[in-house]
Amino acid sequence: MNRLADALKDALKEAKADVLLVTNPINIRYLTGFTGSNALLAVFPDHSVFWTDPRYTLQAAREVGPDARVSTKPLLIAAEQYLARRRIRRAGFERENLRFDQYQVLNKRAAALIPISAAVERLRVVKSAAEIKKIRAAVQTNSAAFESALKTVKPGMREADLAGSIDYRMRRLGAESAAFETIVAAGERSALPHSRPGATRFSNPQLVLVDMGATQEGYTSDMTRMFHLGAPSRKVRQTYSVVLEAQLAAIAAIRPGVTGAAVDKAARDVFEAHGLAEQFVHSTGHGLGLEIHEEPRIGKKSKTRMQPGVYLEGWGGIRIEDTVVVTAQGCEVLTPNSKELRIIHSTVT
Amino acid sequence: MNRLADALKDALKEAKADVLLVTNPINIRYLTGFTGSNALLAVFPDHSVFWTDPRYTLQAAREVGPDARVSTKPLLIAAEQYLARRRIRRAGFERENLRFDQYQVLNKRAAALIPISAAVERLRVVKSAAEIKKIRAAVQTNSAAFESALKTVKPGMREADLAGSIDYRMRRLGAESAAFETIVAAGERSALPHSRPGATRFSNPQLVLVDMGATQEGYTSDMTRMFHLGAPSRKVRQTYSVVLEAQLAAIAAIRPGVTGAAVDKAARDVFEAHGLAEQFVHSTGHGLGLEIHEEPRIGKKSKTRMQPGVYLEGWGGIRIEDTVVVTAQGCEVLTPNSKELRIIHSTVT
Repeated sequence: MNRLADALKDALKEAKADVLLVTNPINIRYLTGFTGSNALLAVFPDHSVFWTDPRYTLQAAREVGPDARVSTKPLLIAAEQYLARRRIRRAGFERENLRFDQYQVLNKRAAALIPISAAVERLRVVKSAAEIKKIRAAVQTNSAAFESALKTVKPGMREADLAGSIDYRMRRLGAESAAFETIVAAGERSALPHSRPGATRFSNPQLVLVDMGATQEGYTSDMTRMFHLGAPSRKVRQTYSVVLEAQLAAIAAIRPGVTGAAVDKAARDVFEAHGLAEQFVHSTGHGLGLEIHEEPRIGKKSKTRMQPGVYLEGWGGIRIEDTVVVTAQGCEVLTPNSKELRIIHSTVT
Repeated sequence: MNRLADALKDALKEAKADVLLVTNPINIRYLTGFTGSNALLAVFPDHSVFWTDPRYTLQAAREVGPDARVSTKPLLIAAEQYLARRRIRRAGFERENLRFDQYQVLNKRAAALIPISAAVERLRVVKSAAEIKKIRAAVQTNSAAFESALKTVKPGMREADLAGSIDYRMRRLGAESAAFETIVAAGERSALPHSRPGATRFSNPQLVLVDMGATQEGYTSDMTRMFHLGAPSRKVRQTYSVVLEAQLAAIAAIRPGVTGAAVDKAARDVFEAHGLAEQFVHSTGHGLGLEIHEEPRIGKKSKTRMQPGVYLEGWGGIRIEDTVVVTAQGCEVLTPNSKELRIIHSTVT
C-alpha cells in the first residue's frame, strides 16, 4: 500500500490537501495491488487507509494486507465518516474520476473538497522494470496468438470467428483476457476505426484489419496488423507502403524528452507528402500500461504505442500499430511481428 | 433518436430543465442506437442533438442518421457552445455519470446546471418485446456454450482454459463478446465471489463454479452453474440443495409489483432456516439489459436475475443463477440449463 505513497506527498503539498481520496480502481490497483472492482483509498502523507466491501474480504486480505478495512456501508460514506471523526479539513479527490453524485456524498461535512488532477496517472506514465516485464509478456502473448490464428484464415471465415479464435489463443497463452474488444474488420469495414467484429465473411480478394492486445498480470499490449486475401491491388500496396513509412517515421522520432506532438508530426508529414493528410483522422499513439489508453506523454522509460493510419471512406482503412518502450537511446519496438502486408493465398478445396 | 424522447419530457418538466445532456454511452445507445464509445446527446422537449467525433463519422451516419453532428472539439465543449448560442437557461445533466472535471467544463457560462437522477435508466427497466427477444438470444447462446464446453472438462484443465473455451464458443454461436469476464473458480477459489480465472488446474474431487453471460446485439445474459469432478461429499450435496431451494424460492416470489426486497427475503429466509444466513454476503439478484448490472426493481416486463449464494471461507462457494423475465402471471425462467449439481466422472487415461 505504501509503494508509491511517497511520490504522492508532493501532490498533496501542492494542492494544500491533507489527504487524497483515490476512487479510480486502476489507480487503487497501481498503489495497492488490489484487483477487485470496488475499493477506496485515502492517501495521507504518512499512511494510507483502504476500504472494500464484504465480497472482497478474503481477496483484500491477500492482496492488500491485514490493514484492509471492510465496510458494509457505501465506501464513500465510510471514508467521509473517517475524515469527519479525525477532523480532516482539506480533502483532495480525483477530479477525472469522481462522479457528481459521489461529490455530493462527500460534500456533506466540514472538510473542504479539493479537485486534484491526474496525481496517480502521472506516476503511472513512467514504468518500472517489473511493469515493462509484464507489458513485454502481454506483447509476446498477443503476437503469438496472432501468428497462430493467421494460419487458420481463409475465405468464408467470419470476422467474429477470427476475433474469437485470437481471444481464445491469447487466453491459452497466459492472458487473463483481451485488452480490449479485438477488432477484425474486413474490406470496407476496415475504414471504421472502431468497428466491432460481426458476421461479415472474408472474401477474395479482400483487405482485413486486426487490432488486438492482451491483458496479462493486469498489463496490456496493443498491435494492429493487416492481411490481404488473394493478390492486393496496386492501390492497396501503395497506400499500405505510405502507412508503413509513416509508422517507421514516428518510431524513429521517439526518444526521451521528445513531445508526443513531435512524434505525431513525424507521421503526419509523411501523409502530407503523399496527399493523404485529410484521411488521417486519429492521433498517432497513446501510452498503455494497466489501461489500454493512458497518458500519452513520452518520458524516459514511458510506454507509447504508435498508430499511424489512413482511412478512405467506402474503400477500406490501413493501420499498423506496435507497442514500444522508450529507452535512453531512443525506443525499442517490443512487437516482433512482421510489418509487411501479409498475403494469404487461398487454396481451392 | 426520438424513440423514447417523449418519455423524457416528464423528467425535464419535473426538474424544470430545458434540456437533458446525456453523457452515459449506454443511455445514448438506448436512445439513439449508436454503438460507438464517444458521443453526447442533448434531449430537448421537441428534438435531440447528437454529437460524436470524427472516428465515428461513417458509423454515426449509419446508426443515428443524417442529423448526427461530428465535432473536432471535445463534445462537452461543443454542447456547451450550442447551449450558449441558443441562450439555454437550465441544463440538466446525468448526476450518476458526469465526472467532476466534466462538470467544470459545462459550468462556464450562464446556463444553470441541474443534476438529474437516472432519467434514462428508469426507462430501461421495462423492456420492450424487441429487447426481450435479444436477451433471450443472449441466454440461448450462453447456455449452449456452457453445455458444449462442459463436455471438455477433465482434471488437469486450467480455470483459464475453460473460461477461454466458453468465450470462444459464445462468439461462434453469435455473441459479440462475453457480457463480463467469465468466472471459472475451482475448489476454495469458488468462495471468492468475483475470482478471476487463472492457472489453477482442476483436481478430483473438486467443486467448480462457472459464472458467465453473453452479449448479443448489445444485450446481456447471466448464468451461474456448478459442477463437481468426481463424487461430491455429503456437505457439498447438502449445501448445494439449500442454495437451490433458496433460488427456487426467490423465483417463485417474482411477479409484477413485488419489490426486490421481498424477493431477496424469500431467498434469505431459506438460508436462515438452515443457519447459513451469515455466509450469504451479496444481494439476491439484479436487472440486466444493455448492461450486466442495471436497476434492480421488479416491474411489469422488467428483467431480473436471481443470484442466491453461500460463501464458506476456505471451503468453497455455491451459487446458482438464472436470467428470468417478469410476466403478467409471475416470471419465466429463460435459462434452460439443468440446475442439478453436474457430476463429471473422470475416466482414467
